[in-house]
Amino acid sequence: MQPKQNVVHLPVYKPGKSTADVKRELGLTEITKLSSNENPYGYSPKVKEAIAAEMDSISLYPDGAAVELTKVLADKLGVETNQVIFGMGSDEIILMIARAFLVPGDETIMATTTFPQYKHNAEIEGATIIEVPLIDGKHDLDGMLQAITDKTKIVWICNPNNPTGTMVTHDEVEAFLKAAPSHVLVVLDEAYCEYNVTDVYPRTFELLAAYKNAISLRTFSKIYGLASLRIGYAIGDPEVVHTINQVREPFNTTRFAQAAAIASLNDDEFIADCREKNAAGIVYLQGEFARLGLKAYPAFGNFIMVDVERPAVDVFQGMLKRGFIIRQDPEWKMPTCIRITIGSKEQNEKLIGALEAALADVALITK
Amino acid sequence: MQPKQNVVHLPVYKPGKSTADVKRELGLTEITKLSSNENPYGYSPKVKEAIAAEMDSISLYPDGAAVELTKVLADKLGVETNQVIFGMGSDEIILMIARAFLVPGDETIMATTTFPQYKHNAEIEGATIIEVPLIDGKHDLDGMLQAITDKTKIVWICNPNNPTGTMVTHDEVEAFLKAAPSHVLVVLDEAYCEYNVTDVYPRTFELLAAYKNAISLRTFSKIYGLASLRIGYAIGDPEVVHTINQVREPFNTTRFAQAAAIASLNDDEFIADCREKNAAGIVYLQGEFARLGLKAYPAFGNFIMVDVERPAVDVFQGMLKRGFIIRQDPEWKMPTCIRITIGSKEQNEKLIGALEAALADVALITK
Repeated sequence: MQPKQNVVHLPVYKPGKSTADVKRELGLTEITKLSSNENPYGYSPKVKEAIAAEMDSISLYPDGAAVELTKVLADKLGVETNQVIFGMGSDEIILMIARAFLVPGDETIMATTTFPQYKHNAEIEGATIIEVPLIDGKHDLDGMLQAITDKTKIVWICNPNNPTGTMVTHDEVEAFLKAAPSHVLVVLDEAYCEYNVTDVYPRTFELLAAYKNAISLRTFSKIYGLASLRIGYAIGDPEVVHTINQVREPFNTTRFAQAAAIASLNDDEFIADCREKNAAGIVYLQGEFARLGLKAYPAFGNFIMVDVERPAVDVFQGMLKRGFIIRQDPEWKMPTCIRITIGSKEQNEKLIGALEAALADVALITK
Repeated sequence: MQPKQNVVHLPVYKPGKSTADVKRELGLTEITKLSSNENPYGYSPKVKEAIAAEMDSISLYPDGAAVELTKVLADKLGVETNQVIFGMGSDEIILMIARAFLVPGDETIMATTTFPQYKHNAEIEGATIIEVPLIDGKHDLDGMLQAITDKTKIVWICNPNNPTGTMVTHDEVEAFLKAAPSHVLVVLDEAYCEYNVTDVYPRTFELLAAYKNAISLRTFSKIYGLASLRIGYAIGDPEVVHTINQVREPFNTTRFAQAAAIASLNDDEFIADCREKNAAGIVYLQGEFARLGLKAYPAFGNFIMVDVERPAVDVFQGMLKRGFIIRQDPEWKMPTCIRITIGSKEQNEKLIGALEAALADVALITK
């Protein structure tokens, strides 16, 4: 057998330890997982009824085109239904965009460090990856603009950026779109946009109306709390959406996911409540990190990156021992940084106690 | 924007009419859908408990590697866990195989008429499609063997074949594998294998053990009745499975799907019951088609293809008017053939009544 040459060197996704594994191995009775940017408040109570209503239809294929959900979402966002496409999480939207647009020889531009699926999917397609380093954890949009050539097909902008949590503003993104050639597809990955409480976050629908080469990616995995159901979407120009649709698998979202998404879109109160509590959590944690003398990056999603000035892997282990799963990743090339999901008030307070103890165990790195 | 040249001409999946649409448009109160090869007996009652047990975990990402389900399935099938990979239906397995192996210039061989996703995915990858016509609705394995060249990467064998329902036997598949060069990946799409009641269907695990270039695709969408949950799998050589894993999205199956699949694998009684009833349904329908003087293809899945000797599209409309959704497709290039899912005893009997009436309305085509 002869796999594609650009696939053979790719890493296989390795599952992290499950909460159950960690409990057993460390003899702990309680584990708090603040590593995957999941919603600590769960999901809208309306979702349960929506799922119950689909129980008798499990053996029937879902509506592949998600017609009803598309209508509900398009109405809510004030866009046309032909501007919307759903995927098995926004992960699958990234896959579909890469698969529909990229061929070997194409260039695609992304930040480093950012969400790894842009690079992974572009590598599978054999495209040339152009990485532009973050500046202070933030996208260097000027540098990304400079990196555009005639060969550039796609630029990926993760906003807020995962894992650093920083934001590029409406004016910054607009200036980028104004200057970028119209043949370049600009992907605005806005998985965490619903957490925004500022006045400067991109007014995405204004931008999409003005720039047909921009597309916004969103998800029900984060503030909507439907991570296990795997559903996300893109909003863009009908022609771009049509192209993505051409590579979509016929039945790529489940009945449960579609029904749960509709129910979630009908519960603004739940979302507003999660947004407020999350903002309070960010401010609380920023205060605590300041007290501990640690530099945290500005946070605009439901997570915060903090430089612990110690080997992140050791702090990670110290936190694990104390019952907290947080995130550090050698691939980030930020060896003293950890990423923490904003938890509930109680979780955040306990986390800080554990972090103080964990930090005391690990020697500072003198820079 | 510049989509891939091999994507621009692809059709976008068009959703069929929903049962609700058909009811409203035709003023019918009851619709029987026998068009998508869904299980008329639903799914194992054990699935409901399994889903209830996951309700509190909706906001948490699924186990991307499906570790528990992989163990349960591998144990049941007597294979190693590194021989198994799960997908969002076997559709996604087909996508992953195409994406991991095919590049422009490669050739890939399939029957015509067969399941359309092999061609669709190979086209997206820019591979050259070699189509070998069925003989009497059955795969022409000799012809497919002759078609293999140095450029051939993948041969797709759908068994039973969708849409014709025919089977190639163990001896036929073994002879093919023996003669085929070992660099060619041979995909045995066995979506309907659990319906087999014969002694001649391939003993797949013997073949997989002997031929590392063979891989079997299976699904929980058919006899297991979990079509809406989108979960299927492949069993093959660990190296091939590893390659496919390299292009798998990190979280490609849901918690509900994994839990429901485990529950389904623990209910052999439900499956045996569905298999028996389905076999009786095939024999009943074959008898009725003989009585009506219609040629039906031999059927080894949960559907049957019958030549109605009239324009299939007219018979389809006649059946719709009478409350039955069946399947015909211009892409099949079998303009007088309809495909009918084997329903329950009551559904099959009513279907025959409706078909007799529908046929009486449409003039025969003299060949």
